[in-house]
Amino acid sequence: MKIEVINTGTELLLGNVVNTHLAFLGQELFPLGLRVERQICVPDGSAIREALLDSFDRADAVLVTGGLGPTSDDLTRDITAELLGRAMEIDPSVLASLEKYFARIGRSIDQRVSRQAQVPAGAEVLFNHHGTAPGLYLPAATLPDGRRSPHLFLLPGPPRELRPMFSRQVAPILEKLLPTDAPRPGCRIYRTVGLGESAIEAMVGPALESIEGLELGYCARIGEVDVRCIGNAEALERAEAVILPALGASLLSSEGENLEQVIVRQLRERKQTLAAAESCTGGLLASRITDVPSASAVFLAGLTTYANEAKTAILGVDPALIEKQGAVSEAVAAAMAVGAQRVTGADFALSTTGIAGPGGGSEQKPVGTVFIALAGGPKGQAPIVERHFFPTDRETFKRRASQAALDLLRRSLSA
Amino acid sequence: MKIEVINTGTELLLGNVVNTHLAFLGQELFPLGLRVERQICVPDGSAIREALLDSFDRADAVLVTGGLGPTSDDLTRDITAELLGRAMEIDPSVLASLEKYFARIGRSIDQRVSRQAQVPAGAEVLFNHHGTAPGLYLPAATLPDGRRSPHLFLLPGPPRELRPMFSRQVAPILEKLLPTDAPRPGCRIYRTVGLGESAIEAMVGPALESIEGLELGYCARIGEVDVRCIGNAEALERAEAVILPALGASLLSSEGENLEQVIVRQLRERKQTLAAAESCTGGLLASRITDVPSASAVFLAGLTTYANEAKTAILGVDPALIEKQGAVSEAVAAAMAVGAQRVTGADFALSTTGIAGPGGGSEQKPVGTVFIALAGGPKGQAPIVERHFFPTDRETFKRRASQAALDLLRRSLSA
Repeated sequence: MKIEVINTGTELLLGNVVNTHLAFLGQELFPLGLRVERQICVPDGSAIREALLDSFDRADAVLVTGGLGPTSDDLTRDITAELLGRAMEIDPSVLASLEKYFARIGRSIDQRVSRQAQVPAGAEVLFNHHGTAPGLYLPAATLPDGRRSPHLFLLPGPPRELRPMFSRQVAPILEKLLPTDAPRPGCRIYRTVGLGESAIEAMVGPALESIEGLELGYCARIGEVDVRCIGNAEALERAEAVILPALGASLLSSEGENLEQVIVRQLRERKQTLAAAESCTGGLLASRITDVPSASAVFLAGLTTYANEAKTAILGVDPALIEKQGAVSEAVAAAMAVGAQRVTGADFALSTTGIAGPGGGSEQKPVGTVFIALAGGPKGQAPIVERHFFPTDRETFKRRASQAALDLLRRSLSA
Repeated sequence: MKIEVINTGTELLLGNVVNTHLAFLGQELFPLGLRVERQICVPDGSAIREALLDSFDRADAVLVTGGLGPTSDDLTRDITAELLGRAMEIDPSVLASLEKYFARIGRSIDQRVSRQAQVPAGAEVLFNHHGTAPGLYLPAATLPDGRRSPHLFLLPGPPRELRPMFSRQVAPILEKLLPTDAPRPGCRIYRTVGLGESAIEAMVGPALESIEGLELGYCARIGEVDVRCIGNAEALERAEAVILPALGASLLSSEGENLEQVIVRQLRERKQTLAAAESCTGGLLASRITDVPSASAVFLAGLTTYANEAKTAILGVDPALIEKQGAVSEAVAAAMAVGAQRVTGADFALSTTGIAGPGGGSEQKPVGTVFIALAGGPKGQAPIVERHFFPTDRETFKRRASQAALDLLRRSLSA
């Protein structure tokens, strides 16, 4: 089954909003044995017409996002009905639920809102549990001109509305459309840190390419390279026998886990705890760790001490040390980690102090400089401190500095 | 000038990586008076051929991302050369810089790496300051079959390589291609909180739609709705005269500022400071504030006290209170905010305590429950505490809870 995604939304093309739909849908479809073959993004309004018509010739199913809301630029419903030659009808169940929702929040329903109850004849309504615009499913059909339309799923634009609707309502429909014996290949992603993309291909590429039925891909990201293997169980097993011995110490995970997930798992297995003392990463380190469900079993506290006075009051860093060495220094990074460990009683404490920019750099310590420290080695041992240099934008800097800190801990835990 | 974007990358379609290129490029193009008319994403490998050929008929310039690396699935260079009927040639300057880079990191250059020095004849090399694969610019040309190819820009996939290359090298080329008198409309985004999309259109839609030359759009996000106005200076001024009085108190910003930017600006103007005491938001509140350049002028510390013991040790929350009321309670939220204010000496302190899930809920306090508190009103006044309910996934919960906390502070500062 060939699947395509059409995202509508001028805000996506202007760059006011990042399109996260494709990543979500891709991840949800794969376990069904399905993949998005092509994704296209067009502005709000009538551009959806050409994009839909184009997809009719190629796709078996099309997932459309956006353009179902109450405002005048929401045309997905109307244009789809027009292309399929269907009349628009008020769906009483949708209208009733709109009326109920607006009564609860004490507002009256107007024409704009009630437009959302109009559906093309023959459409199946996908109920929206997190918003007002329902989704719609239009099964494949023969059009008036003899062409064949694909299965069409019209889904709301806001991710918090689309996601549960897809998982609970769209995925079961797709399942039913698939032959029961359709192949469902597996996917394993080997995430590595510390090696370049070409070095990795040189190490494992030739052996992997000789495995029949294995689809191989590489993907480089900030501080990481993924090796992606897709195939049946036998091909995946043969690939693993190549990858594990070759990539050994650089291998973060073979389960597609990210760095923070690996750390939370490692600490849980060891029944040990962690605290963070952040300056330049400004809470991102803690926020990445607490994105992992069950982080509360291992993460005690994250102390973002942005002001020098807070470093002293909360972590007990000696103000004379800050005065003499500067807040961005090896000694202060070490003192912050030791302080966080002492205050929280955690087994390990990570710290970051650096210059995120755009202002604040000097010749000795330019924007992008960061010191990271880890306290919690064998008793009496001084904290490990590393100096890194990430001259980039503020948000990437925070990401890379937090990545370096997490990897320092991972390497310590794996040693 | 009609611009299209082609993103290549199987990882984008599988959902292993979110496509952030479109948002970046859209934002960078707009000030030049340019917009992305259509974006398409195809897998690594030969699918780029059909996508490129398709765009030839429609676009004046095409920005292609990805597929320039050293591995075997990187085919963008070769397929572009084939479509344009150009031979591949080694570019000595690229080869020299590859050799220099690999010498510096102590590795020798192999065939995989040196592939990246091959460029189609007649291409202009865009030097990559943050990676090994150069970008390429192929000016519009007449093809062997008489068709016309658009201006083609082949850009590397990793965002940290693509972004500086676009800003420093691609944007200046596009500027030169534009007529000097090309219109450059302005864009204003009015960000609102607390009102629904249809309510906003009912309030301002009819008046705005009567303004000639104004392009109007609405975009709903987690806890926010944007009203987007694009047009010349006169149209934008007339729109503003409609929007400001109508949306008044719900208006977060008319400069496209986000909530954290507004708060940092407000606090700077008042020369006041802020601290955060987080439980369920796990550092995200601090991280959002510290994403704003100059946050260090107002943000003293963010104390993520995940464990109950940390709430006591760091914020001085009475353990008996936690025992009696529970860590997720109005009383503990208030005590956390008061504690953070006392420890840091900040003028204001925000706190969050709630149940992010997936585990940990109860009948009285189901997953999604959160208490937020603000300390720092007039002397002697008790903290303001609000209870919210965001039953959703863990990351959206953290986002909405931090949004509610930031908006509580914004409303207090604006009152």
